[in-house]
Amino acid sequence: MIVNMSPEATEEQIQHVIERIKECGFQAHVIRGAERTVIGAVGKEGRRGELEALQAAPGVAALVPISQPFKLVGRELRSERTVIDVGGVKIGDGHWVIIAGPCSVESREQLMEAARGVQRAGAHMLRGGAYKPRTSPYDFQGLGVEALGFLREAREETGLPIVTEVMGTEDVSLVCEYADMLQVGARNMQNFPLLRRLAKVDRPVLLKRGPSATVKEWLLAAEYLLSGGNPNVVLCERGIKTFEAELRNTLDLAAIALAKELSHLPVVADPSHGTGRRSVIPSMCRAAIAAGADGLMVEVHPCPERALSDGPQSLDLPAFAKLMRELERPMTTRAGVMV
Amino acid sequence: MIVNMSPEATEEQIQHVIERIKECGFQAHVIRGAERTVIGAVGKEGRRGELEALQAAPGVAALVPISQPFKLVGRELRSERTVIDVGGVKIGDGHWVIIAGPCSVESREQLMEAARGVQRAGAHMLRGGAYKPRTSPYDFQGLGVEALGFLREAREETGLPIVTEVMGTEDVSLVCEYADMLQVGARNMQNFPLLRRLAKVDRPVLLKRGPSATVKEWLLAAEYLLSGGNPNVVLCERGIKTFEAELRNTLDLAAIALAKELSHLPVVADPSHGTGRRSVIPSMCRAAIAAGADGLMVEVHPCPERALSDGPQSLDLPAFAKLMRELERPMTTRAGVMV
Amino acid sequence: MIVNMSPEATEEQIQHVIERIKECGFQAHVIRGAERTVIGAVGKEGRRGELEALQAAPGVAALVPISQPFKLVGRELRSERTVIDVGGVKIGDGHWVIIAGPCSVESREQLMEAARGVQRAGAHMLRGGAYKPRTSPYDFQGLGVEALGFLREAREETGLPIVTEVMGTEDVSLVCEYADMLQVGARNMQNFPLLRRLAKVDRPVLLKRGPSATVKEWLLAAEYLLSGGNPNVVLCERGIKTFEAELRNTLDLAAIALAKELSHLPVVADPSHGTGRRSVIPSMCRAAIAAGADGLMVEVHPCPERALSDGPQSLDLPAFAKLMRELERPMTTRAGVMV
Amino acid sequence: MIVNMSPEATEEQIQHVIERIKECGFQAHVIRGAERTVIGAVGKEGRRGELEALQAAPGVAALVPISQPFKLVGRELRSERTVIDVGGVKIGDGHWVIIAGPCSVESREQLMEAARGVQRAGAHMLRGGAYKPRTSPYDFQGLGVEALGFLREAREETGLPIVTEVMGTEDVSLVCEYADMLQVGARNMQNFPLLRRLAKVDRPVLLKRGPSATVKEWLLAAEYLLSGGNPNVVLCERGIKTFEAELRNTLDLAAIALAKELSHLPVVADPSHGTGRRSVIPSMCRAAIAAGADGLMVEVHPCPERALSDGPQSLDLPAFAKLMRELERPMTTRAGVMV
Repeated sequence: MIVNMSPEATEEQIQHVIERIKECGFQAHVIRGAERTVIGAVGKEGRRGELEALQAAPGVAALVPISQPFKLVGRELRSERTVIDVGGVKIGDGHWVIIAGPCSVESREQLMEAARGVQRAGAHMLRGGAYKPRTSPYDFQGLGVEALGFLREAREETGLPIVTEVMGTEDVSLVCEYADMLQVGARNMQNFPLLRRLAKVDRPVLLKRGPSATVKEWLLAAEYLLSGGNPNVVLCERGIKTFEAELRNTLDLAAIALAKELSHLPVVADPSHGTGRRSVIPSMCRAAIAAGADGLMVEVHPCPERALSDGPQSLDLPAFAKLMRELERPMTTRAGVMV
Repeated sequence: MIVNMSPEATEEQIQHVIERIKECGFQAHVIRGAERTVIGAVGKEGRRGELEALQAAPGVAALVPISQPFKLVGRELRSERTVIDVGGVKIGDGHWVIIAGPCSVESREQLMEAARGVQRAGAHMLRGGAYKPRTSPYDFQGLGVEALGFLREAREETGLPIVTEVMGTEDVSLVCEYADMLQVGARNMQNFPLLRRLAKVDRPVLLKRGPSATVKEWLLAAEYLLSGGNPNVVLCERGIKTFEAELRNTLDLAAIALAKELSHLPVVADPSHGTGRRSVIPSMCRAAIAAGADGLMVEVHPCPERALSDGPQSLDLPAFAKLMRELERPMTTRAGVMV
Repeated sequence: MIVNMSPEATEEQIQHVIERIKECGFQAHVIRGAERTVIGAVGKEGRRGELEALQAAPGVAALVPISQPFKLVGRELRSERTVIDVGGVKIGDGHWVIIAGPCSVESREQLMEAARGVQRAGAHMLRGGAYKPRTSPYDFQGLGVEALGFLREAREETGLPIVTEVMGTEDVSLVCEYADMLQVGARNMQNFPLLRRLAKVDRPVLLKRGPSATVKEWLLAAEYLLSGGNPNVVLCERGIKTFEAELRNTLDLAAIALAKELSHLPVVADPSHGTGRRSVIPSMCRAAIAAGADGLMVEVHPCPERALSDGPQSLDLPAFAKLMRELERPMTTRAGVMV
Repeated sequence: MIVNMSPEATEEQIQHVIERIKECGFQAHVIRGAERTVIGAVGKEGRRGELEALQAAPGVAALVPISQPFKLVGRELRSERTVIDVGGVKIGDGHWVIIAGPCSVESREQLMEAARGVQRAGAHMLRGGAYKPRTSPYDFQGLGVEALGFLREAREETGLPIVTEVMGTEDVSLVCEYADMLQVGARNMQNFPLLRRLAKVDRPVLLKRGPSATVKEWLLAAEYLLSGGNPNVVLCERGIKTFEAELRNTLDLAAIALAKELSHLPVVADPSHGTGRRSVIPSMCRAAIAAGADGLMVEVHPCPERALSDGPQSLDLPAFAKLMRELERPMTTRAGVMV
């Protein structure tokens, strides 16, 4: 940590900061410049949390952190890439997955039709919401445990492992009985009691990035899971809020490249939530792969115009099958012309 | 709801939308323009949720909602302003409160000193965090139930009602035993299981606006509480995320005016989180009052530079006492000169 | 400047950075920590621009600036507050102004009616656009020089000094003949050729903050004017882009407090553009005053529903007169009840 | 346009709106719902600009536009894709380009070394800034006309057409003498006098998206060029401002897909400005191609750590050559493993 003193800081204030740095267990290195003084707090053993309060000390202009705040998710302590096994399907380090299925489980028929269709088209895992976070209390909130039963049935028939969202700590045990991977929704990325609870389960967790979270905040949310005891985390970029009104969110593909640079965890992309607009989903799927994503999560509904949630961003089964065929084909540019 | 058909929509697609509107329980009114057709869905009895999926129907360019999505928090059904009673202190409709205290309860001594100080200066309620949502798992997470005990003790001595954050459903019963008002933190504004649980308690709820939430999303979060059975909600504007790097958040005072225009609920401002910078807090307190806030929530710490959280935005006791004296004085402009 | 080396930086890379710092005319102070090394570049005479390229040197994690990038607009070199004289009307350091008038000058009649009305109500200056920046080429683009003539006539009749926008360098000389203060619109805050040109005129400049600009970027835009030779700059906060959809912009009142903390220049608020919603303009005017603004800029139109631009955010003349009467009255809170 | 009346609107107010719609040259279609009335304004001949002021009429809740505001850049009037010829290099509709070169032209030697290097690696056009928009007046502002001379010389030697930024109307004639394509920088996307001037030149224009502009605003800026007489416009996505602090901007690849869906103009991507971080540029180049970009614009500098601007986001010549080789190779996914 660097403490940047204000130009008007007195010698007494500088000495006070030096003493407080030592009190927190660090060494203090002072650089006296022409206009101002900066003080470096150095050491591995100090109490960083206490140090941060120094920003409130008299004469301090700003505190500048110089190391990354996350440890276990970072690549400094672990150089090899993590591979997560979800019911036999591997994700990460070259293992690449397609997760597909409806936004919400709406009925046994709807789910089974979707499950069979996405399996036939080549998906590796099935998604489907049993508990739905909805902005309005008057919107469809999910079928709950009934939907979990349908998901289990779909797995039995298709063999596809299941990922579904868990919204609160009270549902964790129940959802663990049915799902192969538990999803933390974007709104819950910083639901710390939920993260602490999921750190104790033996299921992998799909951690969606919050719509306004930075990559660091996302990695720190993952750090709650790893430091609490669950090393099996898949990150999922699902778009961030921006000013663009024509699209629901802005899919931040550079965040995938950045997250993979900073962390050893696998990262998948969700172009369905990430754009909210069916017409651009195929090209964003291709772009996410090109950006280095370890997989895709795609919303597929047998009849999007009757979906109880997220219809406009759902592909129907023929469109999904077409997308899957396209993803098999190589993308190339040659002699300045893309072919 | 208005369904805006794309210019290329076929007559068959238009007819399909008309039929689906009727299927959802609405009447369909068609306006055929020079370039495109729009269809209004009219009626009180229709199923709006099902209608929304029509955005995915062929030939539909966009759906345009024309009524507000919230009901109970709105002013259409309730014209008088709501007054909330928190342990004898009234908020709203001219009843105006100052809530003050430390970000976190750090020790019995720290809390009692803060409580006595803010009471002496004229505060009406005491705040203090027992459970703290922190971005990093390595930061101070609050003293939990021990802190709740200290808060109770502080109320007994000072008489100030207590507001404290509840972070998860599992803590709601416990926190209700100690607190006069339960705070939903900004990160939890859309934690729907928590909102549904708090709809069932007999304590008022202070609902902070999410850092990237629109005013409508905030009011819909409140609608979860009212529609679930708890009419005692105080809204709290605490700043939104913007690009401004010098301030932690941007205190959105127009959102206070707007929330009071759209809703009958009282709205308080939190300039401490809303700016994160001690130097601008007094002027933002004055501005929030001028904007029509029903009260202020201010972080006060006996020694900010030793605070375990949010020191830089905490006032010390003399600064808080000075602020309280200033708030008593009239603000005026006369002959073009502010005095 | 602090150079933060990455944990993997080699000794050779550290030495290279030290040499480059010296080459740029600074002294290098090295702090070797447990995990990484940071190097301070110290000195008044160094070439900061060249130093910044070091971020691209091998082994460098990040560069951390420790001093403010602006000089002449800052308070370090000038402790007293600046007062700007606009055709006899003073702004700043206790001199407080109301600037009012239509968004666009639409006709001689419209302008004269507005001018008489705002003068009668107590405004100190008249605004009115002759050249209008419009998102669409098909929208009304302003009457140009004809409007400038009407503005001059309005000043002759009412005595109110005129402020009007200049959009490009080619219009500067002409607008200077008619206007008492030249406005740089929000979209032009970083139109550097325009700023350089306005640095050479003998008219004060009203510099609007860009809708996505930070306060520092705004002050650096003002620095172009001061460093180029024009010390007469009034800053104008006019709202920033945020996710809030009900309001056109988010009026950032803390930015006013912050700009006045960092700079000696006067700062006025434009709640009309800052909110885009007539109903909240009066409360935002009061809030801006309470936040410390040196004045207000308010859009007033004799018939807002026929305005060729910005009707929804324009007050009509009776509403403006009512606002002016309200601003004369003291605002106060007493015994917890605002009166 | 749909006029959404508020629930409290009186019959008189409804009639007034109907009359005003007719006055503006449209027909009025009224839909009376259970709670509120909406009125459609229909017709091709009406004056839309006047209609918009109706938002300020009594009883009006909101105006809802139902058609796209742009005409000439849209695909409704022109179904085939536009191909732009820049000094013999074609862009669009399958013609795909790499534009490379330094951010700023810093010297004859630096430019020639960069030009030869990017040509050798396979670039089709050369970029280089002669006039630089810089946030601070104390930063390097470009060599101006001297740089233009170097660019011409580089073209003569390498045969690569030149694109360079023009910052103000006063420089347009001069830059046209030297450049094959004129760049409008992101800060100038809504510099309307500049756009109007560039509508009159016989050079293609590269129009960068503003860092906070929506896709519609970007297309409307292009509409200024087309409607003013210049049909040769290449759009360039260069990243938008978001909360992500680790990256300079967020490259919005879905905006490329969306712009190509809404417009017939070619769209290129600038991953250098779009991310500001060298390590993620190659993957963002691949992703941009996969998203459907018609080309890439990449900053290349012979020695990034000595660059006078944008060093951290510049590739050196070997890194650029490596990128070019990678772009030649097909990208594919097969059997769930990306190869």
